[in-house]
Amino acid sequence: MKVKAGIVGGAGYAGGEMIRLLLNHPSVQLEFVQSRSQAGKRVDSIHADLAGDTHLVFTPSFHEQTDVLFLCMSHGESRKLLTDEVIPSSTRIIDLGNDFRSGDEVRGRAFVYGLPELQREKIRKAHNIANPGCFATAIQLGLLPVAKAGILGEVHVTAVTGSTGAGQKLQDSTHFTWRANNISAYKTLTHQHLGEIRRTLQQLQHGYNKEVNFVPWRGDFTRGIFATAVIETQLSLEEANMLFKDYYREHPFTHVVDHMVDIKQVVNTNKCLIFLEKIGHKLAIHTTLDNLVKGASGQAVQNMNLMMGLDEKAGLHLKSSVY
Amino acid sequence: MKVKAGIVGGAGYAGGEMIRLLLNHPSVQLEFVQSRSQAGKRVDSIHADLAGDTHLVFTPSFHEQTDVLFLCMSHGESRKLLTDEVIPSSTRIIDLGNDFRSGDEVRGRAFVYGLPELQREKIRKAHNIANPGCFATAIQLGLLPVAKAGILGEVHVTAVTGSTGAGQKLQDSTHFTWRANNISAYKTLTHQHLGEIRRTLQQLQHGYNKEVNFVPWRGDFTRGIFATAVIETQLSLEEANMLFKDYYREHPFTHVVDHMVDIKQVVNTNKCLIFLEKIGHKLAIHTTLDNLVKGASGQAVQNMNLMMGLDEKAGLHLKSSVY
Amino acid sequence: MKVKAGIVGGAGYAGGEMIRLLLNHPSVQLEFVQSRSQAGKRVDSIHADLAGDTHLVFTPSFHEQTDVLFLCMSHGESRKLLTDEVIPSSTRIIDLGNDFRSGDEVRGRAFVYGLPELQREKIRKAHNIANPGCFATAIQLGLLPVAKAGILGEVHVTAVTGSTGAGQKLQDSTHFTWRANNISAYKTLTHQHLGEIRRTLQQLQHGYNKEVNFVPWRGDFTRGIFATAVIETQLSLEEANMLFKDYYREHPFTHVVDHMVDIKQVVNTNKCLIFLEKIGHKLAIHTTLDNLVKGASGQAVQNMNLMMGLDEKAGLHLKSSVY
Amino acid sequence: MKVKAGIVGGAGYAGGEMIRLLLNHPSVQLEFVQSRSQAGKRVDSIHADLAGDTHLVFTPSFHEQTDVLFLCMSHGESRKLLTDEVIPSSTRIIDLGNDFRSGDEVRGRAFVYGLPELQREKIRKAHNIANPGCFATAIQLGLLPVAKAGILGEVHVTAVTGSTGAGQKLQDSTHFTWRANNISAYKTLTHQHLGEIRRTLQQLQHGYNKEVNFVPWRGDFTRGIFATAVIETQLSLEEANMLFKDYYREHPFTHVVDHMVDIKQVVNTNKCLIFLEKIGHKLAIHTTLDNLVKGASGQAVQNMNLMMGLDEKAGLHLKSSVY
Repeated sequence: MKVKAGIVGGAGYAGGEMIRLLLNHPSVQLEFVQSRSQAGKRVDSIHADLAGDTHLVFTPSFHEQTDVLFLCMSHGESRKLLTDEVIPSSTRIIDLGNDFRSGDEVRGRAFVYGLPELQREKIRKAHNIANPGCFATAIQLGLLPVAKAGILGEVHVTAVTGSTGAGQKLQDSTHFTWRANNISAYKTLTHQHLGEIRRTLQQLQHGYNKEVNFVPWRGDFTRGIFATAVIETQLSLEEANMLFKDYYREHPFTHVVDHMVDIKQVVNTNKCLIFLEKIGHKLAIHTTLDNLVKGASGQAVQNMNLMMGLDEKAGLHLKSSVY
Repeated sequence: MKVKAGIVGGAGYAGGEMIRLLLNHPSVQLEFVQSRSQAGKRVDSIHADLAGDTHLVFTPSFHEQTDVLFLCMSHGESRKLLTDEVIPSSTRIIDLGNDFRSGDEVRGRAFVYGLPELQREKIRKAHNIANPGCFATAIQLGLLPVAKAGILGEVHVTAVTGSTGAGQKLQDSTHFTWRANNISAYKTLTHQHLGEIRRTLQQLQHGYNKEVNFVPWRGDFTRGIFATAVIETQLSLEEANMLFKDYYREHPFTHVVDHMVDIKQVVNTNKCLIFLEKIGHKLAIHTTLDNLVKGASGQAVQNMNLMMGLDEKAGLHLKSSVY
Repeated sequence: MKVKAGIVGGAGYAGGEMIRLLLNHPSVQLEFVQSRSQAGKRVDSIHADLAGDTHLVFTPSFHEQTDVLFLCMSHGESRKLLTDEVIPSSTRIIDLGNDFRSGDEVRGRAFVYGLPELQREKIRKAHNIANPGCFATAIQLGLLPVAKAGILGEVHVTAVTGSTGAGQKLQDSTHFTWRANNISAYKTLTHQHLGEIRRTLQQLQHGYNKEVNFVPWRGDFTRGIFATAVIETQLSLEEANMLFKDYYREHPFTHVVDHMVDIKQVVNTNKCLIFLEKIGHKLAIHTTLDNLVKGASGQAVQNMNLMMGLDEKAGLHLKSSVY
Repeated sequence: MKVKAGIVGGAGYAGGEMIRLLLNHPSVQLEFVQSRSQAGKRVDSIHADLAGDTHLVFTPSFHEQTDVLFLCMSHGESRKLLTDEVIPSSTRIIDLGNDFRSGDEVRGRAFVYGLPELQREKIRKAHNIANPGCFATAIQLGLLPVAKAGILGEVHVTAVTGSTGAGQKLQDSTHFTWRANNISAYKTLTHQHLGEIRRTLQQLQHGYNKEVNFVPWRGDFTRGIFATAVIETQLSLEEANMLFKDYYREHPFTHVVDHMVDIKQVVNTNKCLIFLEKIGHKLAIHTTLDNLVKGASGQAVQNMNLMMGLDEKAGLHLKSSVY
């Protein structure tokens, strides 16, 4: 008996990745892909890489009965949709936007923050998931073990993201002529993902009130996030590695490795790779993931797997495009 | 009962892609990965994207018993290996190099040219496969239907390839500082793939003796081939589309589409997409594929599937990294 | 006594390059830069790389008295402007659009096609210049000597251009996420530059009526054009090189070299490099130039230099950004 | 009377940029370009972008009489050369390596650290210059005004560099297939430029003993450095801007601007652009420059201009390749 899934907002990047992942998922039947802008068109006319893979047509409606509904909309639109429309209460929701990451409810639906490495058991029992942000996932996975140990101090982290993080809409910062061979900063120390990061850190380390200084950069590539966090710690490198490896031992997608990591090691996979270095009393934590997979649609599948009692890795044995 | 597979030459690009594909193949057990240069090292220490996916260690030897052996070596080395070493005759060979594409035998092993869209039935009955070259695959797939119809004249084709086509060895043409933002030509009208292209065309269209003017370009990207062939024909666009679509109707990876194609539609997949345009009496044939997948390791898996009686698509439901 | 110059349409790419070139030109005084969309703003607020180089502010009007007016507008707008507005007849016009490349007149102004390697003496005596298109320049420079010799037959040429060729306007084909690591074709065999190319070839080789099969590609870089033309000829390689080197001997920006060329050798310069290969009875002609400099604003300066009696290279001793 | 200049080590990137800059310098005569590896070959056979610009041939020797000698060699080789060989004492030396940045002497030659924004007057009177490192220049220019004010505390700075920073030698980290679309870290908190950075900060702010936490990243572009430093300060944004603008008012290449900066604004120029943001009690300082120009050869020309009494900007009116 396959899980019946639907996608709301299937024409964008996150929606497209949801389609790609669900079409190949061995335990899922993709019932429909809704899109307001593309309703009536073949899915493979918009996502041309899917030629030969599907005969689905974008639907205007999302009211068919499904077990799980993935919401892939602009920020703010999930709340509007769940407020305005009646979705059967039996339908589980996985929201890829940032509307419910602070734990809000809507119409009696309570959302669980869907970071499996933080709270897998809670996700297993959840009915609605607020899927984490991409930067938030990368940064948190670099800090969870330290906060869990209750020894996290001030954090300085710079992280760079690919252009897909900015979405499909044409804008100056995604013009090829500007972005190619370029690096720039934006939302310095004020990025909206700081909210969910702080909530997680405080959940793990009570009373955590140090600053998380996060400098986001725009990178001249399409996929991936690379982050380096620097913190002060008395842990030796061995102790730090043990702390991290213990923490992630049972988590199938997050790996602490013994060599420098880079973005291409994880592109097109649901993995997060972590590498630690100790210099003086400072610990440098390098993390990397694919913002559209572990940072969005792949993590959404992982959350669905957990909620629906499937193998956590089902449908996520992805071939990296490492070269 | 899984197919037992081994890889000879697993440290390079084609070998790495073989590992990635075979590890996820539902009907294959990857028995060993041989590498002379990396013997004794963990596979995921060289292919770092495989962290968490395998505990395999590169072996110095390739003499374990397997059903299929994939040879991923430099050109010339396959012939040397099959001449010098005794491989059990029951072991099927798929050679990714260019040593046996002209139909040579070695030690009683006859090789079948492994282009499924040309001769799938012959491949199904084959014991040894010479896997086609990447450019050769892209160009042939753009010409097969016309040659089959016996109406192919002179061909002008320009095709650009990513840096992985040049292999892992450091060389001037793969230095980042040179290749980034650059385009250049090489082996103009003399590329070694012209041999296999001509043999195929003559096989389909007896007495074909027109020129195939092939201009290869180096592109500033890592994966993929894009080719535009221009030929003269009296076929209308409708007739040409019908000819191509009929030809490829039963082939699951090659699709004739109704919009311009681009490389990213096929990157990290085993697909070849084709788009036709008619201008005056000229037919333009645009084809694109991933040089490492349909142009190498993916096609090798496709050939293995056919030889071993598996579903042609087994292990090849790959998520594109289209963005 | 400096030449007084003005720019109409200074906010786009070609306009920006005009500003950069004219600000550093030793014999030019840049009087004003007009822009409808940016009037009133500082030039370096739009062209941020000019910080510290100029205090100019975009003007709404272009009616100040100048010796030369550079028109950097969308196609069709130059004709409209010269029809609707009264420009003093003493002001020379250099139009970077394609409105007057076919030799039209407007309000008594006759335009000379501004390809110095074709007709430098005519340009020296001209009062108004229609600056050639970027692809047109690259392709013509590869064919001029053969047409001059009266021996040009059918031409097959593929040429790839950077994203700046598509202008500053946001559009799907210049979205970074799409264009990065991608190649595609457009306007196959129908590109609008074929008009000016054919006119030139017929001017040099009377009665030329063979086809120029031009396949334009979109490249995943910002600047530059690389073209490979293939023609049939009885000339030996030595004869061909002699023909080309003789033709360009007195032209300071176009060089026939003895090794393969690539785009980065000319980026940010006014050069065109040409490399010839002979294979069988075919001659391959590789040409490369910067679409914004020799293919647009740099050639406009070259034309101004010729018209105003300056050194042809004045203001065009540009440092390439080859790496 | 032109300055006679020679280059030792002209075949690499820094050497190539020296040639490009000196050939166009209005007050310099480039007497010779030495290269051990390329001696006897035409300069434009190695630096192919110089076709038509020079007839120079690489010399094996550097003993011709010159006013200034630019040393563009691997680290350690300058010291060896100046120890082993007799250079006329009248010849001024500008060393682009890191051998003398700590103020060492060799054979009676005392070297002045060549950061004009730090000590222009001292450079004017110098006879030998140790040209700063590229990262060191970018980071120092972001910190000089604060250290001068004596209020600099701990610094957290992440900076990313293009592939040219790694030089011309083929190595894994400059293989196109690896570096394209990738980001990675190296020498975390231990980069060798920290030495010269600390010396400068201590020179300006006596007793400065806080940490400069510098995380260097490898970027997937060829030219440029982008750095974001975060420091704690009680200065308001207005006060910080005033401090920086006052400091750089008389420096022609370093500009404090009022909008976010990016690498392409400075590529192929000798500029450094700086942008400040204040968030809470933290000041973020974004700086960007071209590692080969302001970070190497351009700054060397600037230093030569100062030493030889020329206009500081002579030969450095460079057209950016901003698009």
